[in-house]
Amino acid sequence: MTIADRWLLPDGMDEVLPPQAARMEELRRALLDLYHRWGYDQVMPPPLEFLDSLLTGTGTDLDLQTFKLTDQLTGRMMGASADVTPQVARMDAHSLKRQGPVRLCYCTNVLRAKSDQHQGSRSPVQVGVELFGHAGLEADLEILRLALGSVKAAGAAEVHLALGHIGLYRSLVQAAELGHAEERAIFAALELKSPGELAACVESSVKDPALAEMFLALVELHGGREVLDEARSAFAEAPASVGAALDQLAALCEGVAAADPQLDIYIDLAELRGYEYHTGMMFAAYVPGYGQALAKGGRYDDTGRAFGRARPATGFSMDLKLLATLDEQQPPCDGIWAPADDAPGLAQAVQGLREAGERVVQALPGQRTGPAEHRCDRQLVRMGDDWQVSHLA
Amino acid sequence: MTIADRWLLPDGMDEVLPPQAARMEELRRALLDLYHRWGYDQVMPPPLEFLDSLLTGTGTDLDLQTFKLTDQLTGRMMGASADVTPQVARMDAHSLKRQGPVRLCYCTNVLRAKSDQHQGSRSPVQVGVELFGHAGLEADLEILRLALGSVKAAGAAEVHLALGHIGLYRSLVQAAELGHAEERAIFAALELKSPGELAACVESSVKDPALAEMFLALVELHGGREVLDEARSAFAEAPASVGAALDQLAALCEGVAAADPQLDIYIDLAELRGYEYHTGMMFAAYVPGYGQALAKGGRYDDTGRAFGRARPATGFSMDLKLLATLDEQQPPCDGIWAPADDAPGLAQAVQGLREAGERVVQALPGQRTGPAEHRCDRQLVRMGDDWQVSHLA
Repeated sequence: MTIADRWLLPDGMDEVLPPQAARMEELRRALLDLYHRWGYDQVMPPPLEFLDSLLTGTGTDLDLQTFKLTDQLTGRMMGASADVTPQVARMDAHSLKRQGPVRLCYCTNVLRAKSDQHQGSRSPVQVGVELFGHAGLEADLEILRLALGSVKAAGAAEVHLALGHIGLYRSLVQAAELGHAEERAIFAALELKSPGELAACVESSVKDPALAEMFLALVELHGGREVLDEARSAFAEAPASVGAALDQLAALCEGVAAADPQLDIYIDLAELRGYEYHTGMMFAAYVPGYGQALAKGGRYDDTGRAFGRARPATGFSMDLKLLATLDEQQPPCDGIWAPADDAPGLAQAVQGLREAGERVVQALPGQRTGPAEHRCDRQLVRMGDDWQVSHLA
Repeated sequence: MTIADRWLLPDGMDEVLPPQAARMEELRRALLDLYHRWGYDQVMPPPLEFLDSLLTGTGTDLDLQTFKLTDQLTGRMMGASADVTPQVARMDAHSLKRQGPVRLCYCTNVLRAKSDQHQGSRSPVQVGVELFGHAGLEADLEILRLALGSVKAAGAAEVHLALGHIGLYRSLVQAAELGHAEERAIFAALELKSPGELAACVESSVKDPALAEMFLALVELHGGREVLDEARSAFAEAPASVGAALDQLAALCEGVAAADPQLDIYIDLAELRGYEYHTGMMFAAYVPGYGQALAKGGRYDDTGRAFGRARPATGFSMDLKLLATLDEQQPPCDGIWAPADDAPGLAQAVQGLREAGERVVQALPGQRTGPAEHRCDRQLVRMGDDWQVSHLA
């Protein structure tokens, strides 16, 4: 093995160097502090769990994304966490067992066996919040507002909110009594946003002409808030649950607009992301210049059922690594340079400055680099028996 | 699989719940801020690397501790980081390539295939610092002082420092021209601190009687700083490098005692921990009541050689999870309870309080738990058109 080979990192397993690591740390703190002020308690899920627990009720996408390895102690298969959300749901259902609404937040490394299509990283730092124990729109609205606040806290000047509701599609599938294969075909056509393919699938599998028309309408119903009005007429004859979903979306639009009247809201009724676990509203926050969403979330009731306690749940998550690229400031040149000297008083002066919050870099004997290389704009100089801070030219 | 089975976590893979997670976050910040004030820049190493890079020049202990898995993208073996230090050495040697001394710090999850003998955790949060590019004692002393400062920052009232130097044993082995098997036998006897076993090994493999006596002296030379004087006479005829190692230990003792005259220093010249990679002084910081060291470190020059750049290096690391148990305060009951109400002005009042740094927990409609369960000691109440904070009984 050559030296050059040893440098290679696996695709998507990236190291974070200064100053980007400091930027991520700063943002981590800003976000966790934000969640704390909203009443969210931090948790740290285990990086590895038994595979059965990790993938309970999560669907195949997450299974394929999960690194698997054998536990030497038990011989059982373990998986590396690829998504913190189901882990936090387990913690709420089993470990905390609190009464009433529970608000939790986290910021932790996750691992993905394969990178997402739109994103190279296989080692994101997932940061997010979950609100358990309340099925109402107030909880969804809190999550939406907190997600938008998070992206703004990261430095985004302009945020676009994409909003959907898995209930529409689910209700139509149920009403049309579709078999699994038929449903999957329609699902695939909707994911491709392909009206032609959708029409072919719907024609062959949806017998009721009114329902068929509604399926076809789904793929057209995206745009501004006016889409909700168009949907009212398109789904006038739909099951009541479709109307309820539209009511929820309208209320959520109103709620977020009240807090941020300038917000750009995009409604997409054919959005099916996270179909396997979402149960209500779903959203994504976009920032111009970024091809992928910076925050994704939604309602996913009953995930805790597998752990013995079904609870309403809503939340969102983000990749801190990606989010930290929104505001790439250079670190300040604000340190104090101390000479390599064991003169009496110097150690004390250095300690005093550090205790006062200053960054003091002490030179080491024979050191050839100077204050500039170590981001220092001041230095400690001896004045008689004293050491004083003086500015560098 | 029963619900009870799904709750099980693998041995040593623990989740961290509130309030312990908040305590860890607080300590993480305090330590990284401390390192920042000393001029250390944060880095974040990748959680997985190709096995060849990860284990280059690290020895068998780390190999056995490392979880291995196959990279689907390349078919190559990857390992989960079990110790951040060699990764940071690679980052210094290859990724940063800076001139002069480089100070780096980190705080990140690591994974261990097996737990240490003394410690159940297989998922520690490793926090530590490394100082590259300076071979002098000044660097070692800075690391020692920072390690002691870290344990104190975590809340330890009393710290014991155990100090050794791998150079003594190495020099004697070299002078005695021991073969690998002979050296391993003596090493094992010293690790067991067994004078009888040591005598048997030394008799059979060390021909020079003066050297044999020095090997036998190693196992007796432990105790307070006076051990260094005893060692001077025991090793009077030893190779010069033994004297140099004793000089270094004496200077380090003097240096740390100058900064902390009350510090309890324990010298152990038969300490061989990290023999495979340490090259100079080695230390561990203990706190009464804890069977295991809370901080461990030492000099490990030339680790970067495998990556094309041999550099002097010294540093230490700790387990944040363990360290956070030093000071287990309950989280304060300091929040403000806001009613579930969409009355005008309330949202604004809540937002204003949060922007001022207050923790405000908003009730959700129908919520049965109250302010006490959510650690609130105040509440928002309507006064005419206004919302005001009032104390709860």
